[in-house]
Amino acid sequence: MSMSEAISRLRPLTEGLLPDTLGIEFLEASPDRVSAALTVRPALCTSGGVLHGGAIMAFADTMGAAGTVLNLPANARTTTIESKTNFLGAAAAGSRVIGECTPVHRGRTTMVWQTQVRSESGKLLALVTQTQLVLPG
Amino acid sequence: MSMSEAISRLRPLTEGLLPDTLGIEFLEASPDRVSAALTVRPALCTSGGVLHGGAIMAFADTMGAAGTVLNLPANARTTTIESKTNFLGAAAAGSRVIGECTPVHRGRTTMVWQTQVRSESGKLLALVTQTQLVLPG
Amino acid sequence: MSMSEAISRLRPLTEGLLPDTLGIEFLEASPDRVSAALTVRPALCTSGGVLHGGAIMAFADTMGAAGTVLNLPANARTTTIESKTNFLGAAAAGSRVIGECTPVHRGRTTMVWQTQVRSESGKLLALVTQTQLVLPG
Amino acid sequence: MSMSEAISRLRPLTEGLLPDTLGIEFLEASPDRVSAALTVRPALCTSGGVLHGGAIMAFADTMGAAGTVLNLPANARTTTIESKTNFLGAAAAGSRVIGECTPVHRGRTTMVWQTQVRSESGKLLALVTQTQLVLPG
Repeated sequence: MSMSEAISRLRPLTEGLLPDTLGIEFLEASPDRVSAALTVRPALCTSGGVLHGGAIMAFADTMGAAGTVLNLPANARTTTIESKTNFLGAAAAGSRVIGECTPVHRGRTTMVWQTQVRSESGKLLALVTQTQLVLPG
Repeated sequence: MSMSEAISRLRPLTEGLLPDTLGIEFLEASPDRVSAALTVRPALCTSGGVLHGGAIMAFADTMGAAGTVLNLPANARTTTIESKTNFLGAAAAGSRVIGECTPVHRGRTTMVWQTQVRSESGKLLALVTQTQLVLPG
Repeated sequence: MSMSEAISRLRPLTEGLLPDTLGIEFLEASPDRVSAALTVRPALCTSGGVLHGGAIMAFADTMGAAGTVLNLPANARTTTIESKTNFLGAAAAGSRVIGECTPVHRGRTTMVWQTQVRSESGKLLALVTQTQLVLPG
Repeated sequence: MSMSEAISRLRPLTEGLLPDTLGIEFLEASPDRVSAALTVRPALCTSGGVLHGGAIMAFADTMGAAGTVLNLPANARTTTIESKTNFLGAAAAGSRVIGECTPVHRGRTTMVWQTQVRSESGKLLALVTQTQLVLPG
């Protein structure tokens, strides 16, 4: 699967849905790694003009689901069953954050993915670990 | 503080920001309990036409921050330092979810809040526990 | 199933194993609720003479697994797949803590249990949420 | 600080306390990395003869606290405020597990540490992320 095929395969996860509403843009996608970017518009912020924690969690959840989809066997689907975030820094309105999501565990029943969300200068802003259940289609 | 005063005090957390973008509406707010509603528009969904996990986490994060704000001493502010969600059920597009957020711990340095997100018929869809750091203003 | 039958059914989870090593004692057990006690011996403490966070997490994990076992269909077994703890207070050596574990979700694939660990005077010391996977025996 | 000085400085966290009760042995310790080993005795197991999840969490919690202690300013102390574990594989009685704990964030108010627990052959068994509060002594 080429990267453009992988990104195409993720379109049903985003088109007209929350990831589009937030403005999440996949940068790279393969079964081993998903990266994405998000511009910190005021409409995604909390008070103080910094990216809302909820937007960060939605950003990571989208990437973890995407990574799982790229590893699913035929006729299977996935749902997030749990997600844990540590917030480590703030992203100011006008800046852009980059997420990198890699697999911790890829089993037949569950997959666990971890996402690092960083500022463009590389500062770690959040660490997200999530479990995806693999379900028959 | 009356409930309408409490809800007014939360406006700077929402106006023109992510909670408005998502459509989060506070129903009740006091230092002991915050409740809110969210209509499941397609623009908040993931594939399959169900509310995106990220929207659920943003919904709860907004309530936990709100509850903390209503308990802060003068000249203090708060930030979420960690959040954990268990996803238990799906909310279909067109439905509405209700969140209820109550304090687990209200200390001088940290507060811990727990949010139950339910369908309108009362089915538990997600359980979120988050820690807020209390910071000098 | 009577309570004494339930507690008997939990013996294979404890006898000669970590729960015995720590001194975990089941007080009540049914498919809807498990409670247990643990005496804070110095051998279970961390520096400062307070119960080690690891002992608290082991205490809760034992209860969540027990609750799941009491809800398993025939020929099924369970394993913890994730656990999250918020620590809220300390338990001094010589005291005794009480845990109460109740179900958040009991599905065919996963169960989620939540445990409150309290001092004997009722102060909440820790809140633990864990997911158990239900596996064919 | 040499490694032997670092390991000495950790003795008050273990001597006669839960880490000794479990048999946790520090292998390496510096402000940037703590590693430790634990032999899977039957007394640390759950049913099925595999290491109890609670022992895994206690093992990691001990390392995260140790890493924090090695980074504390003078006259400060630390306590774990939250811990999240994903369990990925089992460790059989008679085997030995190795933990490696590294910092995710070292701030003035909080530190976040992540521990990977592996079998001796290198298989990842658990991933633990914990937050330590830094307190005036």
